[in-house]
Amino acid sequence: MGLMNADAFRASLRDGRTVYYRGRRIPDVTAEPDLNLGVEHAVLDYDMAHDPAYRDVAVAKDRESGTEISAYYQIPRSADDLLARSRLIEIGTQRGGTIPPLIKEIGTDALFALLRVLAGDALERARAFYRHCRDGDLAVAVAQTDVKGDRSLAPHAQADPDLYLHVVGRDQNGIVVRGAKAHTSASVNSHEVIVLPTRAMGPEDADYAVSFAVPIATKGLSLYVSSFSGGDHNSLEFPLSSKSRMLESITVFDDVFVPWERVFLCGEPGLAAPLALTFVEYHRFTAVSYKLPLIDAFVGASASIAEMNGVAKAGHIRDKLAALITYAETVRALIEMAALRARIGQHGIAYPDPMTVNMAKFTFARRYHSMVALVQECAGGLLVTAPGAEDWEAPEVRRVLEKYLRGKVPAEERLRMMHLIGDITVRDFAGYHAVLAIHAEGSVEAEKLQILRSYDPRKALSLARKFAGLDRS
Amino acid sequence: MGLMNADAFRASLRDGRTVYYRGRRIPDVTAEPDLNLGVEHAVLDYDMAHDPAYRDVAVAKDRESGTEISAYYQIPRSADDLLARSRLIEIGTQRGGTIPPLIKEIGTDALFALLRVLAGDALERARAFYRHCRDGDLAVAVAQTDVKGDRSLAPHAQADPDLYLHVVGRDQNGIVVRGAKAHTSASVNSHEVIVLPTRAMGPEDADYAVSFAVPIATKGLSLYVSSFSGGDHNSLEFPLSSKSRMLESITVFDDVFVPWERVFLCGEPGLAAPLALTFVEYHRFTAVSYKLPLIDAFVGASASIAEMNGVAKAGHIRDKLAALITYAETVRALIEMAALRARIGQHGIAYPDPMTVNMAKFTFARRYHSMVALVQECAGGLLVTAPGAEDWEAPEVRRVLEKYLRGKVPAEERLRMMHLIGDITVRDFAGYHAVLAIHAEGSVEAEKLQILRSYDPRKALSLARKFAGLDRS
Amino acid sequence: MGLMNADAFRASLRDGRTVYYRGRRIPDVTAEPDLNLGVEHAVLDYDMAHDPAYRDVAVAKDRESGTEISAYYQIPRSADDLLARSRLIEIGTQRGGTIPPLIKEIGTDALFALLRVLAGDALERARAFYRHCRDGDLAVAVAQTDVKGDRSLAPHAQADPDLYLHVVGRDQNGIVVRGAKAHTSASVNSHEVIVLPTRAMGPEDADYAVSFAVPIATKGLSLYVSSFSGGDHNSLEFPLSSKSRMLESITVFDDVFVPWERVFLCGEPGLAAPLALTFVEYHRFTAVSYKLPLIDAFVGASASIAEMNGVAKAGHIRDKLAALITYAETVRALIEMAALRARIGQHGIAYPDPMTVNMAKFTFARRYHSMVALVQECAGGLLVTAPGAEDWEAPEVRRVLEKYLRGKVPAEERLRMMHLIGDITVRDFAGYHAVLAIHAEGSVEAEKLQILRSYDPRKALSLARKFAGLDRS
Amino acid sequence: MGLMNADAFRASLRDGRTVYYRGRRIPDVTAEPDLNLGVEHAVLDYDMAHDPAYRDVAVAKDRESGTEISAYYQIPRSADDLLARSRLIEIGTQRGGTIPPLIKEIGTDALFALLRVLAGDALERARAFYRHCRDGDLAVAVAQTDVKGDRSLAPHAQADPDLYLHVVGRDQNGIVVRGAKAHTSASVNSHEVIVLPTRAMGPEDADYAVSFAVPIATKGLSLYVSSFSGGDHNSLEFPLSSKSRMLESITVFDDVFVPWERVFLCGEPGLAAPLALTFVEYHRFTAVSYKLPLIDAFVGASASIAEMNGVAKAGHIRDKLAALITYAETVRALIEMAALRARIGQHGIAYPDPMTVNMAKFTFARRYHSMVALVQECAGGLLVTAPGAEDWEAPEVRRVLEKYLRGKVPAEERLRMMHLIGDITVRDFAGYHAVLAIHAEGSVEAEKLQILRSYDPRKALSLARKFAGLDRS
Repeated sequence: MGLMNADAFRASLRDGRTVYYRGRRIPDVTAEPDLNLGVEHAVLDYDMAHDPAYRDVAVAKDRESGTEISAYYQIPRSADDLLARSRLIEIGTQRGGTIPPLIKEIGTDALFALLRVLAGDALERARAFYRHCRDGDLAVAVAQTDVKGDRSLAPHAQADPDLYLHVVGRDQNGIVVRGAKAHTSASVNSHEVIVLPTRAMGPEDADYAVSFAVPIATKGLSLYVSSFSGGDHNSLEFPLSSKSRMLESITVFDDVFVPWERVFLCGEPGLAAPLALTFVEYHRFTAVSYKLPLIDAFVGASASIAEMNGVAKAGHIRDKLAALITYAETVRALIEMAALRARIGQHGIAYPDPMTVNMAKFTFARRYHSMVALVQECAGGLLVTAPGAEDWEAPEVRRVLEKYLRGKVPAEERLRMMHLIGDITVRDFAGYHAVLAIHAEGSVEAEKLQILRSYDPRKALSLARKFAGLDRS
Repeated sequence: MGLMNADAFRASLRDGRTVYYRGRRIPDVTAEPDLNLGVEHAVLDYDMAHDPAYRDVAVAKDRESGTEISAYYQIPRSADDLLARSRLIEIGTQRGGTIPPLIKEIGTDALFALLRVLAGDALERARAFYRHCRDGDLAVAVAQTDVKGDRSLAPHAQADPDLYLHVVGRDQNGIVVRGAKAHTSASVNSHEVIVLPTRAMGPEDADYAVSFAVPIATKGLSLYVSSFSGGDHNSLEFPLSSKSRMLESITVFDDVFVPWERVFLCGEPGLAAPLALTFVEYHRFTAVSYKLPLIDAFVGASASIAEMNGVAKAGHIRDKLAALITYAETVRALIEMAALRARIGQHGIAYPDPMTVNMAKFTFARRYHSMVALVQECAGGLLVTAPGAEDWEAPEVRRVLEKYLRGKVPAEERLRMMHLIGDITVRDFAGYHAVLAIHAEGSVEAEKLQILRSYDPRKALSLARKFAGLDRS
Repeated sequence: MGLMNADAFRASLRDGRTVYYRGRRIPDVTAEPDLNLGVEHAVLDYDMAHDPAYRDVAVAKDRESGTEISAYYQIPRSADDLLARSRLIEIGTQRGGTIPPLIKEIGTDALFALLRVLAGDALERARAFYRHCRDGDLAVAVAQTDVKGDRSLAPHAQADPDLYLHVVGRDQNGIVVRGAKAHTSASVNSHEVIVLPTRAMGPEDADYAVSFAVPIATKGLSLYVSSFSGGDHNSLEFPLSSKSRMLESITVFDDVFVPWERVFLCGEPGLAAPLALTFVEYHRFTAVSYKLPLIDAFVGASASIAEMNGVAKAGHIRDKLAALITYAETVRALIEMAALRARIGQHGIAYPDPMTVNMAKFTFARRYHSMVALVQECAGGLLVTAPGAEDWEAPEVRRVLEKYLRGKVPAEERLRMMHLIGDITVRDFAGYHAVLAIHAEGSVEAEKLQILRSYDPRKALSLARKFAGLDRS
Repeated sequence: MGLMNADAFRASLRDGRTVYYRGRRIPDVTAEPDLNLGVEHAVLDYDMAHDPAYRDVAVAKDRESGTEISAYYQIPRSADDLLARSRLIEIGTQRGGTIPPLIKEIGTDALFALLRVLAGDALERARAFYRHCRDGDLAVAVAQTDVKGDRSLAPHAQADPDLYLHVVGRDQNGIVVRGAKAHTSASVNSHEVIVLPTRAMGPEDADYAVSFAVPIATKGLSLYVSSFSGGDHNSLEFPLSSKSRMLESITVFDDVFVPWERVFLCGEPGLAAPLALTFVEYHRFTAVSYKLPLIDAFVGASASIAEMNGVAKAGHIRDKLAALITYAETVRALIEMAALRARIGQHGIAYPDPMTVNMAKFTFARRYHSMVALVQECAGGLLVTAPGAEDWEAPEVRRVLEKYLRGKVPAEERLRMMHLIGDITVRDFAGYHAVLAIHAEGSVEAEKLQILRSYDPRKALSLARKFAGLDRS
């Protein structure tokens, strides 16, 4: 079928999907400006494949068929494949102004997990679905996090049984599911959504151990899209967020029918944790890859604004820049190392070293807010008192601003850099990034746990015992 | 004249002042909704004095005249006076939803500094101006921070001589000043503005060593008000910022004439630093006092949302709460101790212990962003994916939300607490608070410097020498 | 009976007590040099009471009898009493070269706890014992921490029932106890030892809920004194540790008989926790008071050595000094505030505010090792490569050292300051202080728990709910 | 000449070298127990080359001659060579109980720097000296750090001109040098010492810009060996430091003659900085490689003792283990990445990526003391109160200890692990490691500076400008 182009992609989203935004049912997502911002953000991905400057990274040759496919769909077989994938995600995110397109990254993270963890019929169904997505060059969202209710209780023990997505009926044709997933990224502008379980489950949670895929425009499936940071944003004050936005939904399954060929897991609670975990390891690798442009921008914007303010040589500024560089480059080194330490999993599918991935994500997340503080310290109070676009447009005001807001460079240059820093460290968009740093792709606590689990303690334990004189080997 | 009431205050602002907002000249600040939000925020202060519930803290008996005055104007003579002032500021800020009214706090900080540092005629002028403000129950802003241009250069060495405010003419009647001040808080809704120098100055900067006060509605004085976080905000998603806003201006003096009786410093660069510093010590005491409701809210909101999410008993959540409590209560203990260690300065005017004040401010500022991270960790990803006010208003959407967003409490309660946390840790308002934490009332680096300067090293040095066997006392 | 003097104290320790040191039974502790170091350290305390320079702080008038007593025995009734106690401990520790005499501090911490928590007959016995100690001016140790075995198991569930001290027999005259306590400070040089339970206990642990006091020279009671950092130390390299040493023992009760009048708690597990906790709150107040000279020395020694090395003006050194000052002075402010916020407990006995005490201890402990690093950074590598006393004594070597080790001051001055820093941050003595910072008087984790427990959340919770729009008050 | 064996090495040190220890001239270093500890530590290295278990890593084939050489002398040409070198150093240090043999590591660091930075005749002399050392399988120390006096002054501006090593005479045969170097590691047990300049120098410091090599047993060259942690140590309490010790000297050049063929730099101040810096980059790579066994032991010992204490499952212990693992593995990943990012320098000699090396060293050093705290928290107060070797040897005491110090394992196992932790985090040996972490191979501040210098900012700057709308590329 070949690689989809931008217009075909836009058209494909006008399929009767059930989308609510700001309290209203939206008949055509491409016609609603806030939502279309997300659509056009996804177009970045489709355009890359057709842009000679990016074809090398964005398009791959399928190893089975030899045909051209979106490089996201390339199943990784080696460290080099993982490195290429990481660079593809980084470049896509640079183009997306710190927001990844995310219409294939997360979907393939889930697909690789399904292709590794499943077996038998379920594996065949997953393979068929993978080929369907790859050959159709489809955009695929993943709905994993349940709404959860009281988190101290297991799925089956909640006051309302629907607080975790579960199977409420089944027959020879398929299953019927009910429940809601939270924080589903890029569902509005995807073609399909893969549902994964969110945690380990016990025998009593069997009905909650369910994984499947359905088209977004499926009967009973409704997306309630978050209006966070919606509305118009001018490009002076919001250089990135005026163009880039991730759309998140609460994704409600109101007795949705799923045919068996789209069901990957049903009633096997023992597979819930392996599936959830395998996905999330791929996804943390994706995540750190797409964080790189943001933290590079921290370094670059801090160095720029310090220079513009005339303080680049101050000892404490140099200290802050050294800390920002160490942060950004440690995260980069760790994610690169996670790829270089690639392991080969089931069916020859490669995956990044789990401990190293989790250290990368943990290092990124744990120190993120402190780094934001350093960037803000380099910039100054104008971050929240600088004039806005309307001031700049008014000639009699602009004249005053040009006189008084110059640093070592003209006022406009300084203002634009200041507003970039505002966009990524102060404004709604910055808050979005900060919350993502902590909560997306699993919390900081989850990463800590995975570091513990994936670390091989034998070397350290035997060294300690030998040093203590307990083992004489 | 007695204590002004709310209506008189509102009327008093319709005085022809030159105010620009969003690129437009604003004829009446009370008629422009965004600006009126700041006006009504200031009204909180005038109302307190007339509210029986607050009279005890808000109204004081003047020690000279025995008449009733706004308690902010009470010149501190003791530790108890400083404690009372701190509590007044804290209570005012609790009512202001984490934003202090700030129409008298900062003005009196500057007045106390002038009353202590000045001598001779200048002191008499400052005293007269103090009585004018106190007896008229006036709102007084302070313009200190110059726009600064290239910060590696002294005022007189800038490319444009106007980048620091300076004297460009003088005659027997007064002086003429030119330049611009940045980050002037609450100027739009004040009656007077006090200008202070921003830093130590040398002989060549003599024309820049200038301090005076003028009414806001003075010819040649224009306020360019920041539109940061302007516009309507609904009260569900923005429980605090929909009601509370600090207005900041770039304050331009375009050859403004100041009569001698309003000039406090002119051409004595040696006084620039003492004046700047004395002001800022009072002001940091004010600042930490008004931070307390914000950091109390960090603790309270984190504990609440953790309980609502059903995770209050998790080890890592308890760890985070302990860290938040230690943070909030260490800051509180230090600011209280700064008052208890009151020193008596020139003319019997008390001031908080400088080292302790600076430790309080530094502790607050240095750890602020890490604390924001902990609050966000307690809350969850709904901070940026939760539905908004329009969703909640739409019955068919609300029904879904009520079902799926409940925790251990109904969805509405959880949503409201989530949005409070969003307002103070994620949104524009949160970014405003974060930048203030770092830059307002002097930067973190300035606080560090003041801790070094105000610490008396003799005890520690002599103990070290004695321990080292170098002194035998 | 009056205040004991040094000679009487020394003589009183030759009482047949069972002490083991370096594998040998020690017949007279004052005749064994390593142990005598501890004895002479305790003498500091008895000397202070007879030294006119210290009488004011060291001697108090008993409120009951009007006679002179050691000020440690003064039962606190107010904030001022607590402040006086804190200063007494600080001054004693300055004289002791960062090691407190600790022969009455900890004993009175335990006595105050007994006097507050007990009731009925038990209270009367505790009062009688308190008068016995006070009137005899006795040195009193406290044995609280059990050896514990497998910490995941309760006392009664241990493999060996003796791993927590417990009652193994009782009759009309008294009880018989068996078990061992770890880390008993200053037992070797005390007259009495008070035993306290170490943790909360359940009904099955009833036999382990035991508190009493016996003379050190009691049949069946043996002290196994730690040889940590024993042996001769020259005063050049070890300016403090050559003179000051705390002696710690494993204290074994091998079927020790305790008469009823010395039993304070027996078989009431419900009182174990209140007693343990009340003691530890007094004891943490004592602890932070005696840490002050050590952290003051961190500041003074760092500033001195930086000056001697010629780097005092370097930006990064000033940064480190500011951090050290903020650390030392925050701990000091918090412990002072804990006294100022004194609460009045049972029977009118005052105690420091628990939350503030725990914040002081936690702040001290949590940041201790980082502060050590800063001190070492100010000093330099000579900390571990500097010549020792024998080098300095040899004229031909000293001549070389004098030439080559001078800084901005002569070599000897620099060497002595360097060795002081070595003693408190590098050597065994430093390691002892570091481990104490973390483990003594309860661990960092215990302090965190107590902060959570003693914090009153009502203000913060109601503010958060009000801000969130959930309470309208 | 082949690879030297242990006996030949021992014999080679009896060469009349001038060594002072504890104030006395030592005629034979192998006959002085404290010094012989260092000699035998070096023997580890010579033994490895003859031990079949280690030949693969310890012996290399020289690329020029094809003969067998010590692998340390292999000039790196690729990432793989650097990785092999790192592993060799790590394995040597595991055998050395956290102390590297360091008799060839540091010498070859200096040789590689000389071989890269020099040119012309100087390069030929360095090459000849390299072959001399390699073919003789020699132990080579490096004396770099001058004693420095007042660090705010340049070498030529010191009160005594000898405070930095300098040339005091020259003729056709060679030069005469005077001065002293501090912290010279492993000089006592080396054959040769290479002298390098310590810092950037200006024209007035020309006489101080000097580099050369001489045999240790050279007339006028005296070693004053530090007695830090000297004396006997039993193996129970000091499992590592009883066997492993690094010897450090103040190395005095009292008008030492150096023939021209051993002079590498003389009178060219412009080469001082490149030489100092090139050496230190190799040396930091060496350093981090030899830190790995120490920080692995932190992890292993913490996990072991927590298990033995019965607290391995406690939440806060798991938290600490996760932090320790992340620390150790981040350092490991960075040093491995520094090798993988190898660059090829002058004459085809490879070197590790400077930014990555410095990040590895900085990460190791900056967080070292906090990690020590975590290890101590896992262990408990027995670290400083545990019984010693003499207690354990005495049967009547051991019986008590065996009963009361057991955890989930017998007392001996727990005691040994406890003492290992004492040795590496509490005792003199631990202090030595801690000071090395901060000061060896350049201070933390120097590493920060190198991160700034070696970071290529172009990518981040252009991304920031593009994001800010300043560059449209």
